[in-house]
Amino acid sequence: MSIKIGLLGYGNLSRGVEAAISQNPDCELTAVFTRRDPASVKIASKDVPVYSDAELPKFKDQIDVLILGGGSATDLPVQTPKYAEMFNVVDSFDTHARIPEHYANVDQAAKAGKKIGVISVGWDPGMFSLLRMISTAVLPEGENYTFWGKGVSQGHSDAIRRIEGVKDARQYTVPVESSVEKVRNGENPELSTREKHTRECFVVAEEGADRSRIEKEIKEMPNYFSDYDTTVTFISEEELKEQHAGLPHGGFVLRSGVTGLEKEHQHIIEYRLKLDSNPEFTGSVLLAYARAAYRMYQEGNCGCKTVFDIAPAYLSPLSGEELRKTML
Amino acid sequence: MSIKIGLLGYGNLSRGVEAAISQNPDCELTAVFTRRDPASVKIASKDVPVYSDAELPKFKDQIDVLILGGGSATDLPVQTPKYAEMFNVVDSFDTHARIPEHYANVDQAAKAGKKIGVISVGWDPGMFSLLRMISTAVLPEGENYTFWGKGVSQGHSDAIRRIEGVKDARQYTVPVESSVEKVRNGENPELSTREKHTRECFVVAEEGADRSRIEKEIKEMPNYFSDYDTTVTFISEEELKEQHAGLPHGGFVLRSGVTGLEKEHQHIIEYRLKLDSNPEFTGSVLLAYARAAYRMYQEGNCGCKTVFDIAPAYLSPLSGEELRKTML
Repeated sequence: MSIKIGLLGYGNLSRGVEAAISQNPDCELTAVFTRRDPASVKIASKDVPVYSDAELPKFKDQIDVLILGGGSATDLPVQTPKYAEMFNVVDSFDTHARIPEHYANVDQAAKAGKKIGVISVGWDPGMFSLLRMISTAVLPEGENYTFWGKGVSQGHSDAIRRIEGVKDARQYTVPVESSVEKVRNGENPELSTREKHTRECFVVAEEGADRSRIEKEIKEMPNYFSDYDTTVTFISEEELKEQHAGLPHGGFVLRSGVTGLEKEHQHIIEYRLKLDSNPEFTGSVLLAYARAAYRMYQEGNCGCKTVFDIAPAYLSPLSGEELRKTML
Repeated sequence: MSIKIGLLGYGNLSRGVEAAISQNPDCELTAVFTRRDPASVKIASKDVPVYSDAELPKFKDQIDVLILGGGSATDLPVQTPKYAEMFNVVDSFDTHARIPEHYANVDQAAKAGKKIGVISVGWDPGMFSLLRMISTAVLPEGENYTFWGKGVSQGHSDAIRRIEGVKDARQYTVPVESSVEKVRNGENPELSTREKHTRECFVVAEEGADRSRIEKEIKEMPNYFSDYDTTVTFISEEELKEQHAGLPHGGFVLRSGVTGLEKEHQHIIEYRLKLDSNPEFTGSVLLAYARAAYRMYQEGNCGCKTVFDIAPAYLSPLSGEELRKTML
């Protein structure tokens, strides 16, 4: 009996989950739900139906876990609590400041429906959070460092696209390697925003647009670019398509801590991700947590959960016995 | 109300736990128990008593978690099941092939006593196991690689010391950097034993001993050295004391996996430890899992647990709310 997965939305992240389902024989894609006209949504999986999201309540007994592919700005704050009352749900909510509020809303709904709602799953928040948390528990005296990249930031790419005269753009966040090395060497540096990451922008300008004005507007944009060493390279539309079509990402979480009665010993814990496809990796993490949600629900558990609340064994299709034999 | 920790044994690992307790204000060291004459055991913590292990049953209500500092060969197979019936216990059992048997024994005892018994805690088994397991659940199609070092292997150092004419020795296990790089680059190499690690031996010979025979005996020793590129360097006793007194260790766990409907995207997950003191880091991990054992016991849970069965939040002194706010 496989775990029946429903997908709400069919953007990059949902397609990542769909691909992950094809690699996990204990899971199957039951249906995709969309706010668009279902007839207009063509999905990769054969023989899997697409329905309007208005149909979702009818699937209450046919879907084990609903994975939400929506965005954190407007979709998830509404969708996750709404559907957590009907389904076990998993989302990738990543608006840090609003997590306590989102947790409370999802917890209330999930408890009312006796379901499991897993929020903020992915790699950051998600895997990186897990590593920060465990490493800090193990080495309570120390510093955490998180570096992102090299990878495409959708938010920064969008910000560039909103500038007048810009046809398309791709922005890469790049960790400053010399700063990462300092942390690795146990120097515990205090790092400014500028010292942690650089930003590389590849921009397609409209014909006749003032490139030096575009470059200036990018580099001076507050919050997004002004605090960083930013490079702007103008390229052709073809070049953007050929060389910057992917969505790679990744990064590092490091903890540098001390032990010993005299705090004389230093330890460095480093977790690193190098991802060819951000949405496919994130989708793979979401699916593993969907498995966990389903199992915890089957045990009678309910309420909102984060990566901190879920015993790792729930993520794996292997039994406890197999895990101890092959992974311990 | 702090968590009352008892320590059985007072070797390197127990001293590592003792140092960790000094960094965790929610834990306190209640007593150390020894098989030796208690009067002969001087411990670092002031005002903490040392008792004979025969006294342990009397402390049933005064100790929340007993951490076992003994070895996997003969101590833990007996001690962990024995004491799991009386106490919540944590051990670092690392004889891979005997884990299923050890798990079964500890599970039976802990359930009989309604206690929690956490086994095989440390960094490998322990943190490395956790990373292998989670990474495999997230990327089910791929390869796992584990490299150890650079670090001191006590077992290999002991093996050299048993050779005639050897006064003292220190053996370092060193990962082959070019092989680690191949894995990092996603080449998925098939690596022989020799291609994964080299072994560096620093040997103090007895006066007049035949050094070339010693070197030959080391390099040809089956299981320990014959499958590796091994270097032997003879040094003086003073040099060994001055330059090789520490117990550093560490290593890498890597998972290389693919995603995508055509398996067209590759991902590398890397977890790396660089430890100045193997026993102090291991002791710190044991203490975090002692906290988890205590909390799970308080919730009415019982039986044998491994790192796979324990929700990460139990490891931290912070509340769920604080964790979500600061670590997610």
